[in-house]
Amino acid sequence: MKPKISLVSLGVRDFRTTLAFYRDGLGLPVHNYSEGEDFCMLRLEGTWLSLYPRDKLAEDATVKDDGVGFPGFSLAHNVASREEVDAVFAHALAVGATSVKAPQEVFWGGYSGYFADPDGYLWEVAHNPFTDLT
Amino acid sequence: MKPKISLVSLGVRDFRTTLAFYRDGLGLPVHNYSEGEDFCMLRLEGTWLSLYPRDKLAEDATVKDDGVGFPGFSLAHNVASREEVDAVFAHALAVGATSVKAPQEVFWGGYSGYFADPDGYLWEVAHNPFTDLT
Repeated sequence: MKPKISLVSLGVRDFRTTLAFYRDGLGLPVHNYSEGEDFCMLRLEGTWLSLYPRDKLAEDATVKDDGVGFPGFSLAHNVASREEVDAVFAHALAVGATSVKAPQEVFWGGYSGYFADPDGYLWEVAHNPFTDLT
Repeated sequence: MKPKISLVSLGVRDFRTTLAFYRDGLGLPVHNYSEGEDFCMLRLEGTWLSLYPRDKLAEDATVKDDGVGFPGFSLAHNVASREEVDAVFAHALAVGATSVKAPQEVFWGGYSGYFADPDGYLWEVAHNPFTDLT
């Protein structure tokens, strides 16, 4: 496993306000964002930051946003193929992670799974065939 | 402001278990860690990951870990001087961030402040004179 956080995703409650803060306020560069969308990737140096509605981020990870189990954010580790997703995911479980969502095809056209670290923080292991975040 | 997350810090409940998971299990490279310490920095590609007891991370940010206000993690933006900390911090407040801890000297020898983004996620703006994370 390459030692890298590919993407930090923040689950946000008011997407327009948060987007305005990061994009217009702090001046972080957005990537392929079209006005009106509720998902935005900010291309930072070394890693990426994404903003996504909090309920949808929880839904993507198949966890409940009930104020207990979902910390509101996730870290992603992106790899170059589906097979690598399966391998990294299996390795994480073998060393103590908890499976949250087994790797599977996802609606945006990629392939990903979620595991929880010992504190319940969520890692997505993903293959994105459209945008190389590896 | 350079568009960069310098450090992702996870607040952990059982430090030894979490350290073993990331260091020994996933094989992430540690930086200057001495056995028995309760703070560990993992040098990843592009950004750093740090592990710190959850209560101490909350204390450093001067927030309560009461299950409501503290999401359990923080993002850091490191800069090269105290003056830059002040400037980035002031800019963040000017564009909508909430001050959580005004920039000040901290026990580990650096200078840092915390602001909250519109969703309450914590950003530390820091100058670390010992380790260059910029």
